[in-house]
Amino acid sequence: MRTFEQYVEKLRGMRPNVYMGGKLVPRDDPAFMPGINTIGITYNLVNDPQYRDLVTATSHLTGETINRYNHIHQNTEDLLKKQKMTRLLCHKAGRCIQRCMGIDAMNALSVVTKDADLEHGTNYHERFLKFLHYFQENDLVANCAQTDVKGDRSLRPFEQQDPDQYLRVVEKRADGIVVRGAKAHNTIAPYTDEIIAVPTRAMTKNDTDYAVAFAIPADTEGLYLISVAHNQRRRKEFHAPIANAGAAHSITVFDNVFVPWERVFLCGETKQAGQLASLFATYHRHSYTGCKPAMTDILMGATALVAEYNGVEKASHVRDKLAEMITVAELVYAAGIAASVCGKRAASGTCVPDVVYTNVARYHAGVNIYHEFETLADIAGGLAATLPREEDFVNPETKGFLEKYIMRKADVPAEKVHRCYRLIENLISSEPGAASQISGIHGGGSPIMEKIAIRAMYDLESKKEIAKYLAGIVD
Amino acid sequence: MRTFEQYVEKLRGMRPNVYMGGKLVPRDDPAFMPGINTIGITYNLVNDPQYRDLVTATSHLTGETINRYNHIHQNTEDLLKKQKMTRLLCHKAGRCIQRCMGIDAMNALSVVTKDADLEHGTNYHERFLKFLHYFQENDLVANCAQTDVKGDRSLRPFEQQDPDQYLRVVEKRADGIVVRGAKAHNTIAPYTDEIIAVPTRAMTKNDTDYAVAFAIPADTEGLYLISVAHNQRRRKEFHAPIANAGAAHSITVFDNVFVPWERVFLCGETKQAGQLASLFATYHRHSYTGCKPAMTDILMGATALVAEYNGVEKASHVRDKLAEMITVAELVYAAGIAASVCGKRAASGTCVPDVVYTNVARYHAGVNIYHEFETLADIAGGLAATLPREEDFVNPETKGFLEKYIMRKADVPAEKVHRCYRLIENLISSEPGAASQISGIHGGGSPIMEKIAIRAMYDLESKKEIAKYLAGIVD
Amino acid sequence: MRTFEQYVEKLRGMRPNVYMGGKLVPRDDPAFMPGINTIGITYNLVNDPQYRDLVTATSHLTGETINRYNHIHQNTEDLLKKQKMTRLLCHKAGRCIQRCMGIDAMNALSVVTKDADLEHGTNYHERFLKFLHYFQENDLVANCAQTDVKGDRSLRPFEQQDPDQYLRVVEKRADGIVVRGAKAHNTIAPYTDEIIAVPTRAMTKNDTDYAVAFAIPADTEGLYLISVAHNQRRRKEFHAPIANAGAAHSITVFDNVFVPWERVFLCGETKQAGQLASLFATYHRHSYTGCKPAMTDILMGATALVAEYNGVEKASHVRDKLAEMITVAELVYAAGIAASVCGKRAASGTCVPDVVYTNVARYHAGVNIYHEFETLADIAGGLAATLPREEDFVNPETKGFLEKYIMRKADVPAEKVHRCYRLIENLISSEPGAASQISGIHGGGSPIMEKIAIRAMYDLESKKEIAKYLAGIVD
Amino acid sequence: MRTFEQYVEKLRGMRPNVYMGGKLVPRDDPAFMPGINTIGITYNLVNDPQYRDLVTATSHLTGETINRYNHIHQNTEDLLKKQKMTRLLCHKAGRCIQRCMGIDAMNALSVVTKDADLEHGTNYHERFLKFLHYFQENDLVANCAQTDVKGDRSLRPFEQQDPDQYLRVVEKRADGIVVRGAKAHNTIAPYTDEIIAVPTRAMTKNDTDYAVAFAIPADTEGLYLISVAHNQRRRKEFHAPIANAGAAHSITVFDNVFVPWERVFLCGETKQAGQLASLFATYHRHSYTGCKPAMTDILMGATALVAEYNGVEKASHVRDKLAEMITVAELVYAAGIAASVCGKRAASGTCVPDVVYTNVARYHAGVNIYHEFETLADIAGGLAATLPREEDFVNPETKGFLEKYIMRKADVPAEKVHRCYRLIENLISSEPGAASQISGIHGGGSPIMEKIAIRAMYDLESKKEIAKYLAGIVD
Repeated sequence: MRTFEQYVEKLRGMRPNVYMGGKLVPRDDPAFMPGINTIGITYNLVNDPQYRDLVTATSHLTGETINRYNHIHQNTEDLLKKQKMTRLLCHKAGRCIQRCMGIDAMNALSVVTKDADLEHGTNYHERFLKFLHYFQENDLVANCAQTDVKGDRSLRPFEQQDPDQYLRVVEKRADGIVVRGAKAHNTIAPYTDEIIAVPTRAMTKNDTDYAVAFAIPADTEGLYLISVAHNQRRRKEFHAPIANAGAAHSITVFDNVFVPWERVFLCGETKQAGQLASLFATYHRHSYTGCKPAMTDILMGATALVAEYNGVEKASHVRDKLAEMITVAELVYAAGIAASVCGKRAASGTCVPDVVYTNVARYHAGVNIYHEFETLADIAGGLAATLPREEDFVNPETKGFLEKYIMRKADVPAEKVHRCYRLIENLISSEPGAASQISGIHGGGSPIMEKIAIRAMYDLESKKEIAKYLAGIVD
Repeated sequence: MRTFEQYVEKLRGMRPNVYMGGKLVPRDDPAFMPGINTIGITYNLVNDPQYRDLVTATSHLTGETINRYNHIHQNTEDLLKKQKMTRLLCHKAGRCIQRCMGIDAMNALSVVTKDADLEHGTNYHERFLKFLHYFQENDLVANCAQTDVKGDRSLRPFEQQDPDQYLRVVEKRADGIVVRGAKAHNTIAPYTDEIIAVPTRAMTKNDTDYAVAFAIPADTEGLYLISVAHNQRRRKEFHAPIANAGAAHSITVFDNVFVPWERVFLCGETKQAGQLASLFATYHRHSYTGCKPAMTDILMGATALVAEYNGVEKASHVRDKLAEMITVAELVYAAGIAASVCGKRAASGTCVPDVVYTNVARYHAGVNIYHEFETLADIAGGLAATLPREEDFVNPETKGFLEKYIMRKADVPAEKVHRCYRLIENLISSEPGAASQISGIHGGGSPIMEKIAIRAMYDLESKKEIAKYLAGIVD
Repeated sequence: MRTFEQYVEKLRGMRPNVYMGGKLVPRDDPAFMPGINTIGITYNLVNDPQYRDLVTATSHLTGETINRYNHIHQNTEDLLKKQKMTRLLCHKAGRCIQRCMGIDAMNALSVVTKDADLEHGTNYHERFLKFLHYFQENDLVANCAQTDVKGDRSLRPFEQQDPDQYLRVVEKRADGIVVRGAKAHNTIAPYTDEIIAVPTRAMTKNDTDYAVAFAIPADTEGLYLISVAHNQRRRKEFHAPIANAGAAHSITVFDNVFVPWERVFLCGETKQAGQLASLFATYHRHSYTGCKPAMTDILMGATALVAEYNGVEKASHVRDKLAEMITVAELVYAAGIAASVCGKRAASGTCVPDVVYTNVARYHAGVNIYHEFETLADIAGGLAATLPREEDFVNPETKGFLEKYIMRKADVPAEKVHRCYRLIENLISSEPGAASQISGIHGGGSPIMEKIAIRAMYDLESKKEIAKYLAGIVD
Repeated sequence: MRTFEQYVEKLRGMRPNVYMGGKLVPRDDPAFMPGINTIGITYNLVNDPQYRDLVTATSHLTGETINRYNHIHQNTEDLLKKQKMTRLLCHKAGRCIQRCMGIDAMNALSVVTKDADLEHGTNYHERFLKFLHYFQENDLVANCAQTDVKGDRSLRPFEQQDPDQYLRVVEKRADGIVVRGAKAHNTIAPYTDEIIAVPTRAMTKNDTDYAVAFAIPADTEGLYLISVAHNQRRRKEFHAPIANAGAAHSITVFDNVFVPWERVFLCGETKQAGQLASLFATYHRHSYTGCKPAMTDILMGATALVAEYNGVEKASHVRDKLAEMITVAELVYAAGIAASVCGKRAASGTCVPDVVYTNVARYHAGVNIYHEFETLADIAGGLAATLPREEDFVNPETKGFLEKYIMRKADVPAEKVHRCYRLIENLISSEPGAASQISGIHGGGSPIMEKIAIRAMYDLESKKEIAKYLAGIVD
C-alpha cells in the first residue's frame, strides 16, 4: 500500500490541467491541500492498530492486503465494514472522507461488466479485472464522474440541441474511443489519480453513443478540470483538525479525450448503461448510510458540547433535540445495516446492498440534513455567526475583552468556549459549511432521485393485494 | 399445539369476571369475537404450509414444535423471524395481531429471572422455566399487564396518597403473595388464558412492595376485567376480512389477588423490576418493528388502490406520498432488522435486540402514524367519511343511485369501489380506526418514552469527544 | 327571525325524501337531532345579549335585523364579524357549526349573478335578490351542494361516459329547467330548508350544460337525500354539550328535478360557473379561518385540561406542544383577519375576502389538523381509547373500582377526570371524531386545492423579477 | 433628511473604536461598505417617487417629513406601512435592511419611558422626547444593543460570578451614570450613529443595577466595537446588486462608559426593564413580519427563476414547493397585518402591535427559514455549491467550456444562467448566506423565546373553560 507521501508525490508529477480562479494551478496548490489531507486520513490509518482491520481488506484477486477503499465487496460482512469504516473516518475528517467514490464505482463496474458480457458476449469484465489489479496494486484514488451537465432537462441525451451535453463517444478507433462532453460536481477530481466515467441515467436505444463507461488518468490529454475549493479559513494560532480538512470539486471537461480499449468498460450497451448508473448510485447511497450518520454525530457532538458549556444540557428542549438527532443518525445507519445484511451476490460474485433499504436510508438523511444544521444553530445561538475573527482573540487590545465576555460556566476556560464556537462557525456559518448542506441533499442523488428509485424497486402491487384481501375484493 | 376451537372452548369454561357496558359478560360475547378471531389467525396459520415455518419454532426446552408466539428467542435469526411473522400476520388481520404481548413478556422474564438469581441467589428462573414449559405445552395466550393506573403522575409509587395506584404486594404468605392495584390498557385481557403482570417503571429502594412480577390465569379470584371493545360495524351483505377482526381492552383490577410462589417471578428486587419494565418495553417495541410496517402496508395498499380506482395513481402528488409511506414502513422495518442482527444473548441464553435501534424504530413509527392516516384520508377524499351505510346499497330505492354515482373509471365495477371505500371507512373513519391511531402512538410506549430510552442508552459522550477532537479541545 | 322550534317544526312538515340505513326516515329522526341541535345554536344565541351583536346583522336589502348567517357582507367589518362569530359558535357546538354554507353560497351568488348580468345582459341578480329577500325574511338554513360525484377523475364533465357524473341541465322548458346528477358530502342536507347547487370546477366551452346554479327546497320532487349521520354515543347519565351536537351528510341525487326560472342563477355561462365554483370556495375557506381555530381551541383546551388533571401541565414538552397548537390557531385566524381587512367590494357591492390570505389560512389549517389530534392523543395517553363505557361507571360492581383507579391528583374528583376523558374520547376516539379529521382536511377544499388556488392567484412573476434584479439579469 | 453621502461623511469623522481581524479599522473600511450601502437604500429611496410615501412619515413631534425609520407609530396604519416598507426595502437589498432596529428601539422607549414616569414619577419620557427630536432632526441610524453576553445561562444577572456578564450601572454621578458590560450580536454597530442599550430580560428586585436603558454615540469613550463582517465575494466583472449589500456585527464592550442623565431612559426600574426587553422584542418581531416574507420572496424568486431556466418550472414537485414557500411568506405577512390592525395605543400614544399575532408570525418564520434554503438548494441542484469562480468565466482557456456546458434551454444565454447560479451561490452557498440562516432563527429572538412569549401572553384558561363546558364539568 502507498504512503500518504507517495500519493502526494505522484500528484505533483502529473500534467497540469487543473484550473481555478482564472489560472492553471498545480495539484498541490494550497487550496487543494485540505482536500488532499482528507484523503490522507485513509492512507495514514492503515498503520493505526485501532483502525487497521477496518481500513484494510484482503483482495479477492491477489490475496494481498489492500486498502478497503480499493476492495470489491465479497459478502455482507464487507458491506457492513465499509459502512462502519466510512462513519469512523468521517469523524476523523470532520466531514466527507471523499475516497468512497472509487470503491463505489469499482464495485458497480465489477457487476455490470460481468452482466454485459453475459448478455452481449463482450469481454469487459476481463478488462475491468486487469484495471482492478493495477488499481489495487498501486493503491490509487479515483473520482467517479457521473453527473452530466445535461443541458435542457426536458430532453433526452440524443435530443439535445448540443449533443455534447451528455458525455458521448465521438469516434471509435482501432485502439480506443474518443469522447466529448463534461461531467459536473466532481469532488476530489483535482487531487485524484484516476477518473472513472459512468453514465448518469437510463438510456434508450437512441442514446447508444452515450452508453459509455471508462477509466482514465486524471491528467489525460484533453481533460480540463475547472475547479473550486471549499476550505475553512486558515487558522494561525488556534489550530484544530476541523480546519485542516476540505474539499474541491471540478467541472471536468472531456475535450476529445482518447480512451484505449483496455480502459473502456461499456460502449453502446444502453441497458447496462442504465444499470451502471443505478448501481453506482446504490453503492454510493450505501456509503451515505455511513457518512451521513457521521455528519450527524459531528453536529450532535457539537450541539451537546455547546449545550454543556452553556449550562443548558439538561434543558428539556435540548435533550429533546439531541434525541431527534440521534434518531436520524441511527435510523439511517440501521437501514444501512439492513441493506448490508440483506445484500445479494451478483453474477460477478460482488455483493450488492439491498436497494430499497439503501434508498430509504439515503432519502431520510437527505431530507433531514438542513434540519440538523438548524438544530445546532438553534442551540448554539447567534454567536455561531457573530464570533469575531481569530486575530481579535490575539490582539492585546481586544483579547482581554473577548476572553472575559465569552465566558459561560466558571469552570470552562475561555479558550475552550472560543474553540467550541470556532468549530461551530466552521460547521454552520462558513462557505464550506453552507456547501456541505447542499452536498448533503444532492450527493449520491437528490431525495427526489431516491423516491424515484424506491417507487421503481418497490413491490407496491403486493400492498394493493393486501388491501383487496381485507376489503373482500376479488378480481 | 392447540386448535383455535380448543382455545375458544377453554375461554368458554373460564370463571366469568369480565364486565362491559355495565354488565358481567361471557368471554365469548359477540363483542369479543372479532378479537378472538384475530388471535385465531395465529392458531390457524400453523397448518398453512406457506406460514408454518414462520409461525412455529422448536422449543429450546423440549425440542418440540411450538407456536413461535410461545418461543424464547435463542439467536438473531429468531428475532428476525418474529419480526417478519408479526408483519405478515398483521396483514391477515388488517390490524394488530395482539398475541405478541405473550412472547414479549416471556422473553423479558426469561432474562430478568436469571439476572435476579445471579444477583440475589433466588430461584426465579427455575420457577419461570416450569411456567414456560406449561405455557408452551398448552399453547397459551397471555396478556402482559404492565401500565399501572399511576395516580398523581408527579409522585413515585410509594409517595401516592392511595398506595394502590401502582400494583403492589399487600401480604406475603407461606404459599404465596396477595396483590392489589390495577393495570390499564390491557388489550386481549378479556380473551386471554393468562395475565402476566410486570412493573411499569424504574423503582427506588422505597418502592419494594411495587417490585413484583407474576403470571396468573385470567379468571383468578379477585381479578375484575372491566372491558371495552373496538370493532367494526358488523357487515350483513358485503362481508370482508377487515370487518372480522377487532380488539378489546380492559382495566384489570387486582382486588387482593392471591398468587402462589411458583407463579411469582420478582418480589422486592427493585433493580430487576426496573430492568424488567425496560426489557419488556424493548421486546414489545421490537414487535412494533413488525406490526407498524404492516399497518403502513395496509394504509399504503388502500391508498394505492383507491388512487388506482379514482384514476389518479400516476399523479405526481400521489406517487410522492406513496413513496413517503414506503419510506416510513421500510425505515422502521430496516431498523428492526438492524436491532435483530445486532442482538446479544443474555446470561439466560435469550437473545435481546439492540435497544437503540429498537427504540429509534418504534419512535419513528409512533411519530408518523397520524400522518399515515392523513395521507390515506387525503388521497381517498371525503367519501371515506360520508359513505352511506351498507343497507342503502341494498335498499332497492337507493341502490341504483348509489351504484350509478359511486362509479369512477368505467372498468371498475361499483361494488369494487364501494368495497374499497368501505375498507377505508373502516380504517380511518370508524371508532376502531380512531382508537388505532391512539394505540399507534402509545402502544409499547409513547414517543416520549422512546426518546427517554434513547437518551439513556446512547453514548452521547463519545460524540462530544468527536467534537472536542475536531475543535482541538484537550481536557 | 325564526325560533329554533319554528325551524324544527318546518322540518317536520317537509316531504319525506331522506334515506338512511336502508330506510326512508323522517327529518327529525333521532340520528339527525344532534345535527339539528347544532344548527339550533345559531337560532338560540340571537337572544343572548352576549352574542346578539355578533349573530345578527342589518339586511342591506330591507334594513331589518337578520341572522348574520343570512347576511350579504357589505364591508370588511362584516367579514371580520362573520369570522369571529364562526369561531365563537363552534366553541358552543364543540364542532363545526354547519350553517356557514348558506351565507357562503349566498355571498358568492350575489357577486357572480351581478357579474354574469354585466357580461351577458341576463337578469340573474334580480332573481337572486328576490330569493335573498325570501331567504332573509324566513330566516332559512341552506345547504350548498357543490361537489359533484365526478366519475372518472381524468375526464372533464362533457367527456364522461355517463354524462350525469356532473350535475347538468337535461331539459330547458318555458317555466324552468330540469336537472340530473348527484352532489356528494352535503352536510346538513337532511335538516336544511334549501339546497343551493353551484358548480364544482372551472368549465370549458363544451361543458355548457354543466354550468348551472340554482336553489330549491330540500324536499323538492325528484330529490333523494341518501344520508349518514355521525353522532357521539348517547349519554345516559353523564350528560354534556359535546354529546348533544353532531352532523349528518348526504349524497344528494337530482333525479330529473324541475327548477323554476326564478330559482335559476346560472344556466350555460361557463366562465361564471368557474368563477362561482372558486368564489364559493373562497368564502367557505374564509369561514374556515373561524371554525378551524375554534376546533384547535377545543383540542387545545382539552389538552391543557387533561395535562392539568394529570399534573403534567408544567412539563416542558406539554408547554411546547400547547404553544404549537396556539401558533396554528392564531396563524390561521390572523390570516383570516388579513383576508378580511384586505377584502374588496365586487360590482354587486358584496365584500370579497383576499383570496391569497384566505387560501394560505385554510391550507395551513388543513395540513395541521391530524397533528392537532395527535397532540391531544399524545398528552392524554391511552385512556382516551380504552376508557370503559359510561355504564361501567354506574354499575355498582365496577363503579367503585373505576372511581378509585381513575384518580389523578388528590384534589380532582373522579367524576371530573372521567368527564374529561369522556370528552377526549368523543373528540378523538369516536366515529364522529375520526370523520372530523377527514372533513378537517377536505371541507371547503383539500390542501391540494388551496395550493392550486394559491399558485393561480399569486404574482410569482414579480418574485422572479426581484431575483433577476438582484442577479443583475436584464431581459 | 440626510443624504447617504452625509451619513457616510459623518461615519468617517467618528473616533476610531472599531476592531476587526486584529486591527483598529476605520468605519469606512471596505469590509463595512456593503453594510453601509445597505443602509444607504433607506436614504436613497426617500427621493424615489415610487417609495417616497412609504419611506417617509410626518413626525408627530414636529410635523416635519422624516424618514419612517425614525418615526413613532401613531396608529395601525403606521404599523402596516412600516411592515410593508420593510418588505419592499429588503427586496432592494437582497437581505435584511438593518435600519429597523432604530425604529423598534425608539418606539419601545417611547412607551416604556411614559409608563415608568406614570408609575415612578420620573421624567424619562421628557428626556426621551428630546432625544427623539434630535434623532429625527439629524436623521440618525441607531443600533439597538440588547443581548447581554449572559455568562452562565443558569444564573440570573445578580448571581453571576463576574457581575459584568450583564450590562450594569457601576457608578451614579451627578451628571450621569457609568456602565460596564458587553452586548453581543450588534448588527450595524460599526456603521451606526447611535447605540441604544436596552435590557435583555425580565429582572428581579435584586437586579436593580442591570435595569438600565440609554442611548450614546457609537464612538463614545470606553466603547469598543469588536466586529466581524459578512459580505459576498467581491465581483469583478459580473456586477450585481446582491453582491453590493452586506452586514457587520460587533460585540460591543462598555468599558466604564459614561452616559449623561439626559441620555438615560431607565435606571433601576426593574419592572419597566422587563417591559422594555419584551416590548423591543415585540416591535422587532413585528419588523420580521416584513423582512422574513421578503427573504422568502427572494428565495422563492430564485427558485422559480432557476426552475424556469432549467425547464422544470411546470414539474409538479417544483410547483408544490413554490406553493409552500408562498404559504410561509404570506402566513407570516398576514399575521403581521393582523398584528398591525389589532394594534393598541399605549399611554404615550404610541401604537403597539398585537403581541400574540406578532409572535406567532415571527415563530413561524423562524422555524421555516432553514427549510426555505433547503428548497432552493433542492431545486437548484449541486451547481449552487460547485460553480467555478467568476474568474474562470473570464479566463479564455476555460470561458468557452463553461459557457458551453452551463447552457440549459436553448433560448436562455449562458450569462443569464451563470448570473442566476451566482445569485444562488451568494444566497445559499456562501458565508453570508450561512450566517443569514442563523440570524433567520435568532434575530429578534429565537423560536423558543417566541414560544415563551406566546404562552405568557395567551389566555389558555379560557380554552380550558371551553373544554370544561363541553365536558359538562362544573368547578
